[in-house]
Amino acid sequence: MAVDQGKLKYLGQVEAQKIDEELFTEYAFSVDQLMELAGYSCAVAIAKCYPVEKLTQGNGAVLVCCGPGNNGGDGLVCARHLKIFGYNPTLFYPKKPNKPLFDNLTKQCQGMELPFLSEFPTDVEVIQRSYSLVVDALFGFSFQPPVRPLFAGVIDTLKKVETPICSVDVPSGWNVEEGDPSGLQPQLLISLTAPKRCAKLFKGRFHYLGGRFVPRALEHKYDLQLPPYPGTDCVVELNTGNSLPRN
Amino acid sequence: MAVDQGKLKYLGQVEAQKIDEELFTEYAFSVDQLMELAGYSCAVAIAKCYPVEKLTQGNGAVLVCCGPGNNGGDGLVCARHLKIFGYNPTLFYPKKPNKPLFDNLTKQCQGMELPFLSEFPTDVEVIQRSYSLVVDALFGFSFQPPVRPLFAGVIDTLKKVETPICSVDVPSGWNVEEGDPSGLQPQLLISLTAPKRCAKLFKGRFHYLGGRFVPRALEHKYDLQLPPYPGTDCVVELNTGNSLPRN
Repeated sequence: MAVDQGKLKYLGQVEAQKIDEELFTEYAFSVDQLMELAGYSCAVAIAKCYPVEKLTQGNGAVLVCCGPGNNGGDGLVCARHLKIFGYNPTLFYPKKPNKPLFDNLTKQCQGMELPFLSEFPTDVEVIQRSYSLVVDALFGFSFQPPVRPLFAGVIDTLKKVETPICSVDVPSGWNVEEGDPSGLQPQLLISLTAPKRCAKLFKGRFHYLGGRFVPRALEHKYDLQLPPYPGTDCVVELNTGNSLPRN
Repeated sequence: MAVDQGKLKYLGQVEAQKIDEELFTEYAFSVDQLMELAGYSCAVAIAKCYPVEKLTQGNGAVLVCCGPGNNGGDGLVCARHLKIFGYNPTLFYPKKPNKPLFDNLTKQCQGMELPFLSEFPTDVEVIQRSYSLVVDALFGFSFQPPVRPLFAGVIDTLKKVETPICSVDVPSGWNVEEGDPSGLQPQLLISLTAPKRCAKLFKGRFHYLGGRFVPRALEHKYDLQLPPYPGTDCVVELNTGNSLPRN
């Protein structure tokens, strides 16, 4: 059941960065921890919207596109949990930073036998035939234009595919505050911690909030007005006004 | 719905240690990651067995007792997630190792405004009156007797309280393989990764398996025969043969 958004705050870029920073400094979380919870909540939201048994292409095949920063890390974690849930994820991860965290996230996916594509499929038909879903974990709340050419090509291709796209935190290529009317149009958006301002321009079907780890004092300090999560769920569906009725 | 255990393997101590080691070396997981998932699954299992709205003592008060090793770390993570789920956890954590991981887990709990007891209540009545549940995260699968005096006193007290006890991975003080017929008798046991051999001697009401992160190759290598987890759940209830019928 989707909840009304009430006074839920939509964060500007600087505010999102400050909150992220405070989680690591004031509250002493590690990136490993919060990325694990964030990526897990993305996988859960995807499973709620697109149950694996209803996917028709390639035995639950999902193409997970990971960018060079923490949004890409969320994507790697999401892919690993999707695999555990019975999906069949394939990764595209062309720009891994040379840091132990990302080395390890990659090894974990390899250890789970997830294939990595060496090149992005440029043929829209190939993507549509091979995958039931695309996860867009290219750029998140730190994104500053322009998109570099490698990823610009990926985004251009994804704009043409009819396969549903699930964006992690921010639809990639969008200005974090102003959005991008001619940009990628995901069917599912999973906002993490709190939605970013561009989420107001989301025209897709499903909007979930994940990353249920915000200390109450931090929530109050930034007046986030987060909606209640149901029970022990790690995600909550937000009412978009765009959604077709759910069954 | 509890699942029958089928051929589910019960691990000896050495085997449990080997699997743990392999998760960190072969599969490149960090302790932060797996502890987060393990502690989260403990909190979810507790919430399934003891919904917060049904707890009568002290507004959902839970006493979380954390030992000096990784089992204690699982307890700190569990306490944090219980707080997020609306419980009111209090920590007893008398022997924090001097390592950044445990410093950080402690700070996270402090940042969530969880109180830490400086002394363990020796009065059984006080515990029963103050808390609806006790989480036992003192010792896990690496435990070797004897229990040192500080914790022996805690376990002796917990053996006398009627408050339901939820043990993380191994009922504390039990021999990991042989159990302890005169030891702590938890009402809920949450086995992590795979149950340890002593879990066969568990006489409580609820047995859950958590820690849904085991790569299939590792599961096969050790012939774990893990039961299927339902949907995206991070825990699965195992049939104990002891359980009263659930509603």
